[in-house]
Amino acid sequence: MTVFRTRAPSGLPAILGVSQSATAAGVRYPDRDDLTLFRLVEGTRIGGVFTRSSLPGLPVLWNRSLARRGRARAIICVAGNANVHTGTKGAAAHRLWVESTAHTLGCEPRDIWVAATGVIGEVPSGTRVARALPALAQTCGPRNWSRAARAIWTTDLAPKATAAQVRMGRDSVRIAGISKGSGMIAPNMATTLSFLFTDAALSPPVIRSLLRECVADTFNLIDIDGFPSTSDMVLLAATGMRMSQPIVDTNDPRLRAFRQSLHACLEELSMGVVGDAEGISRLIRLEVSGARTDTEARRVVRALALSPLVRTIFAGDDPNWGRVICVLGATVPRLDAHSIVISFDDCVVSRNGVPPDARTYTRARAVMRRKRYTLSVRLGRGRGRAHLYTSDLSSAYLKINASYLS
Amino acid sequence: MTVFRTRAPSGLPAILGVSQSATAAGVRYPDRDDLTLFRLVEGTRIGGVFTRSSLPGLPVLWNRSLARRGRARAIICVAGNANVHTGTKGAAAHRLWVESTAHTLGCEPRDIWVAATGVIGEVPSGTRVARALPALAQTCGPRNWSRAARAIWTTDLAPKATAAQVRMGRDSVRIAGISKGSGMIAPNMATTLSFLFTDAALSPPVIRSLLRECVADTFNLIDIDGFPSTSDMVLLAATGMRMSQPIVDTNDPRLRAFRQSLHACLEELSMGVVGDAEGISRLIRLEVSGARTDTEARRVVRALALSPLVRTIFAGDDPNWGRVICVLGATVPRLDAHSIVISFDDCVVSRNGVPPDARTYTRARAVMRRKRYTLSVRLGRGRGRAHLYTSDLSSAYLKINASYLS
Repeated sequence: MTVFRTRAPSGLPAILGVSQSATAAGVRYPDRDDLTLFRLVEGTRIGGVFTRSSLPGLPVLWNRSLARRGRARAIICVAGNANVHTGTKGAAAHRLWVESTAHTLGCEPRDIWVAATGVIGEVPSGTRVARALPALAQTCGPRNWSRAARAIWTTDLAPKATAAQVRMGRDSVRIAGISKGSGMIAPNMATTLSFLFTDAALSPPVIRSLLRECVADTFNLIDIDGFPSTSDMVLLAATGMRMSQPIVDTNDPRLRAFRQSLHACLEELSMGVVGDAEGISRLIRLEVSGARTDTEARRVVRALALSPLVRTIFAGDDPNWGRVICVLGATVPRLDAHSIVISFDDCVVSRNGVPPDARTYTRARAVMRRKRYTLSVRLGRGRGRAHLYTSDLSSAYLKINASYLS
Repeated sequence: MTVFRTRAPSGLPAILGVSQSATAAGVRYPDRDDLTLFRLVEGTRIGGVFTRSSLPGLPVLWNRSLARRGRARAIICVAGNANVHTGTKGAAAHRLWVESTAHTLGCEPRDIWVAATGVIGEVPSGTRVARALPALAQTCGPRNWSRAARAIWTTDLAPKATAAQVRMGRDSVRIAGISKGSGMIAPNMATTLSFLFTDAALSPPVIRSLLRECVADTFNLIDIDGFPSTSDMVLLAATGMRMSQPIVDTNDPRLRAFRQSLHACLEELSMGVVGDAEGISRLIRLEVSGARTDTEARRVVRALALSPLVRTIFAGDDPNWGRVICVLGATVPRLDAHSIVISFDDCVVSRNGVPPDARTYTRARAVMRRKRYTLSVRLGRGRGRAHLYTSDLSSAYLKINASYLS
């Protein structure tokens, strides 16, 4: 397995059977690309994991309805408008997106997968997308990743891209992927828009199974905003162009290296997303061990990531671990204060109920000035553990989010 | 019932049998009062409701151990250090506080109730409090409310005070109360420090029952920080000086007017606390109706109050109700988008899945510039309802909370 550690989408390799491009369709943003088209060779199989929101957007509902068939000739992505909660007019726009893409590419509507991200509750334009498509389809090429990786942005500031090369039996295949995401990030769903492509040959059930498995401890372990969005998805399209024998069984031995590579790619993309979270200045790993059960540990890391009082100490480099005590006390019943250990990286600020001295605070402050560090909590009452990635809660976050709509 | 609507503690009436004062003991803050003493006449009955944190501070543990007895000769309150998670040294300081107060007043340690608020995990001084007490006891008077109401502050900016006069049978009694609280505010506990006093005669079980009942929809319905603190309490001390026959039965008909007045007082204090929340610029009533059950509705209002993305729209006067949709979708399974109605006060921004027009947004922005307004969500699937008060999430909040410890 070779993972190309790249943040520059320009370094992504071509995936046989995939071409992409983007254009400024004028959906919401003036003067920037906001419509992305990924063309996929005939025979491409596809699968995805989607937000668990009970009020998902039309793109999520549409793709889910196509999941069992698992074939696609194109993915389109609209940035700036999520087409969520937009009534019959939004549904008409969605239909126009799908039908005009199918018409442009000469395939069926059910071959077109859709993603959209941005404002909720505003009807997007159907016609602008339809008008832009014929020219857009002409400009697709196998190495247009840079343009695509930016066209899917909303408030993102940095591109998120990943790639890997994998040997599968006698074949050598590639994976390339890009992500969008810097707002409404939370676990228990796919968390963001991610598009991955491979020239391996995988059946739709194999794709779905791989994604579910690899997303569980990558995209499902980042949390900035506490609640999943209505539009999140991670898609993987497999063209099969570099493999003679398709993989249809999740126990196929050729899948081992691929699974590892896909996991590494998703990990890199998810760290890219949380690292580009709106207004972030610190990337924090929250780690809980010694809980009664893994479920209890997960409840605690989730609560820590939800607490504005905890996340503001990250912004201020302030080792105010008392706020961690507050969240623990509010979240876990019948705790024993004397078995709790709290650390910032290797600096233990509270052990077994004993508070730290002044020198420890100085050391803790030094740790908190690092760009990335771990806040770990040991509860000392079992073997349950969990972790999660979050960020500081900064003034920049508030500035971005207080006026997103306006 | 007469509720004196007063925010000025100087306007609080004397309560027969209660005197108070405060002094600068140097616990944490330089040059300001941080130690408050409430002296109570012999025979005073007392009760409280406390944080449900499983890691409560020593003051909470101490008062709970005295609750069944329900008698007090004094309450002391230390501001700046909560004496939580401070090990054996913190316990020694606590004992010194209690013993020196008892010694000064010539009563038993079990007659002394304690409250403390402030930083967690730093051992507070026992001796400074002990040294300050004799002089402090000398200066107690029945109309020193102003000084007491400020001495209990941490980051508060405005005094919170309330009073009422109640006729109970042939007796006319009074209630006076003050609150502290502007950080770590969340429901499912008493939420803050509140001290209420009355010259009515009530047994400890009656006091506890009244408090539980009246706190449920006052202090337990405000939420700024999502998680209760380790130190919250609401105490009510009843001197009995204006009543001949004590009330020992919660069904006593004389209790009706008193219950109403106490409720009004607690409501006023709790609104004062949420209105003085750190960095607040908007006081928001979150209202959910049409849920399957009250429990479901409570889950939704709690989730809305926890969402930083929702609370930032209040700060920016940005009617971005799509974020409400996100929280609903993440919190309630199997929702029907077509039955959801979202409003800011009387301005409906989304009805039955249909998005608003531009004029509606203009009207919504105007509502959001009000200092207080209601965000209401109708789910249209039952009769469950709940509400909660919260605030905007502002840059000022972050500034206060990013460097509290330093």
